[in-house]
Amino acid sequence: MNLNIALLAGDGIGPEVIDQAVKVCDAVAKKFDHTINWIPALTGAAAIDAVGDPYPPETHKICREADAVLFGAIGHPRFDNDPSAKVRPEQGLLKMRQELGLFANVRPTFTFPSLVDKSPLKRERIEGTDLVFLRELTGGIYFGKRGREDNGDTAYDTCTYTRKEVQRLAKKGFELAMRRSKKLCCVDKANVLESSRLWRETVQAMEKDYPEVTVSYEFVDAVAMRLVQWPNSYDVLITENLFGDILTDEASVISGSMGLMPSASVGENVSLYEPIHGSYPQAAGKNIANPMATILSAAMMFEDFGLSEEATAIRDAVNQALETGMVTEDLADKDKAHGTDEVGNWLAAQI
Amino acid sequence: MNLNIALLAGDGIGPEVIDQAVKVCDAVAKKFDHTINWIPALTGAAAIDAVGDPYPPETHKICREADAVLFGAIGHPRFDNDPSAKVRPEQGLLKMRQELGLFANVRPTFTFPSLVDKSPLKRERIEGTDLVFLRELTGGIYFGKRGREDNGDTAYDTCTYTRKEVQRLAKKGFELAMRRSKKLCCVDKANVLESSRLWRETVQAMEKDYPEVTVSYEFVDAVAMRLVQWPNSYDVLITENLFGDILTDEASVISGSMGLMPSASVGENVSLYEPIHGSYPQAAGKNIANPMATILSAAMMFEDFGLSEEATAIRDAVNQALETGMVTEDLADKDKAHGTDEVGNWLAAQI
Ligand SMILES: CC(C)[C@H](C(=O)O)[C@@H](O)C(=O)O
Ligand SMILES: CC(C)[C@H](C(=O)O)[C@@H](O)C(=O)O
Repeated sequence: MNLNIALLAGDGIGPEVIDQAVKVCDAVAKKFDHTINWIPALTGAAAIDAVGDPYPPETHKICREADAVLFGAIGHPRFDNDPSAKVRPEQGLLKMRQELGLFANVRPTFTFPSLVDKSPLKRERIEGTDLVFLRELTGGIYFGKRGREDNGDTAYDTCTYTRKEVQRLAKKGFELAMRRSKKLCCVDKANVLESSRLWRETVQAMEKDYPEVTVSYEFVDAVAMRLVQWPNSYDVLITENLFGDILTDEASVISGSMGLMPSASVGENVSLYEPIHGSYPQAAGKNIANPMATILSAAMMFEDFGLSEEATAIRDAVNQALETGMVTEDLADKDKAHGTDEVGNWLAAQI
Repeated sequence: MNLNIALLAGDGIGPEVIDQAVKVCDAVAKKFDHTINWIPALTGAAAIDAVGDPYPPETHKICREADAVLFGAIGHPRFDNDPSAKVRPEQGLLKMRQELGLFANVRPTFTFPSLVDKSPLKRERIEGTDLVFLRELTGGIYFGKRGREDNGDTAYDTCTYTRKEVQRLAKKGFELAMRRSKKLCCVDKANVLESSRLWRETVQAMEKDYPEVTVSYEFVDAVAMRLVQWPNSYDVLITENLFGDILTDEASVISGSMGLMPSASVGENVSLYEPIHGSYPQAAGKNIANPMATILSAAMMFEDFGLSEEATAIRDAVNQALETGMVTEDLADKDKAHGTDEVGNWLAAQI
């Protein structure tokens, strides 16, 4: 295959972890006889500094024309605690999601046997957890009409969903459930919200097209509880944008392996792959960031290209690194920690 | 004191746990020389069956004229999975909150030394946790304009807040923080939502009136994570209605003592006290439900009347019951469990 991949390193530790993912992907390409053309582009605080826009038109053009986007992280402390600043890195993120049509955020939470004890949960609660959230990413209250009235004393936001938007996301959920354990949980607040009632009735109407899938409907507050109590009782979960924001982050910490969790944001034409951890500015430039989440995100990318063997090669290498202790300081005893680039080099060589 | 307390037993285990709370309150009244007039009223599924309305005008009148409301639980499985049913118990709950003006839901999460090991979290994560959420309860997306367009294919909900609503809730938060460790966390999503930006700027403007309180601002997704990771790093948290719904439920399970967690819903004129557990229909009528959350809610009621000694007497009795094993089956080894009424009688006698 000949692959054109847009490379958006972003801010903080983004560039460092992206570098390692590139090494690993290049090793995969060499072994399996593919060609990868990397096309770097600006985003985040770096793009604000360079051209005053966290997601410049040039970057959008590069992403739109690419076969996929590999993304590091964006965000910079300089923009924190000033949510009303005119230009913010997050705006770039939201603009990118909307303009590229990245409607489904795929967020797996799973455990590595060697890391189970890092979880804040007791072993018997977390062991065997392997769930995937599909979060709707281009609709809902993130993109509805908002504003002020009464001289600024009243503020409002609107959560809007169309049946088509729900169907598009739910279809991905049913398909994923078919490839996994055939269990789907639709998370909503249908006892209060009209948009949630649309979600529920739309998913209910789709059940007949997937007779093998068992669908359950749970309220968002109940899921927030059960994720802590019995995370391994879930498999595939679908939900709207804001609930997904909260629940996927909650889910990400229960495994204790947050630094290793990958994600994909899937669109009709192009998809984007990124680690779920942020830009972690305190660690930037120190060669201590864990590159594995980014590298496992690249594995999701190969999987989506239909290149399962390639994806498996990456995952196997990561498992070996974990088992032999070829890990960064977040996973190692202090004096046994390896550098970000050392881990990247080792994984590339392993492949 | 002469107290008129509206008594809303509600559905499921509601009547059983309310009975025990009445016994304990009567014992307190006797000991401290108060008079309590209990005024029972219908609510929930029981009220739907009787008069077709989950919160009938008569019940409202009784609550409005009372000094406080003691509430059991509402909800019945017959209404589950049918979120579009014309009359639902939850509607009664929302109507009650709005018509009584119960704007602040006070939800403590704390640990009992003897129950720490019931938590899904490891001991070192949960030990010492003692936090309180103040959830705004009569505004936001729960009560905004909602509906359908495009022949039902588009659904919307509106989240609206006024500066006054935020101030009213935040004031309670600052005051509570002053009585506790002087730490206040404002939970919002100000990087996306206009209503959250109003929350943040309003709270920021109030900081100068409470110079001793240290205020932090955190995004709702970050709080969903940290509640699982380091719950004992929080003290008082304030937030809007929907975020509060999700986060207070998440917080309730981390302690492992959910069956013991009380709550208050505070209004300008009257306040309501209820256990956070639901109507638990599977246990109804079996004399196995844990009455302690309702009894501890009654303790919050005495506290709010300025009757601290009375509140302390109840809490001490509960602690003794826990220590001596005078507990229901959720907390006991199977053959050592006591009945709901046995626990209630024991606690009343203790006082
Ligand atoms: C930065 C923020 C706007 C974003 C979101 O809320 O979607 C982030 O929390 C995420 O989940 O990717
Ligand atoms: C039953 C439901 C409407 C209610 C809510 O969402 O407020 C409940 O979850 C609660 O938290 O009291």
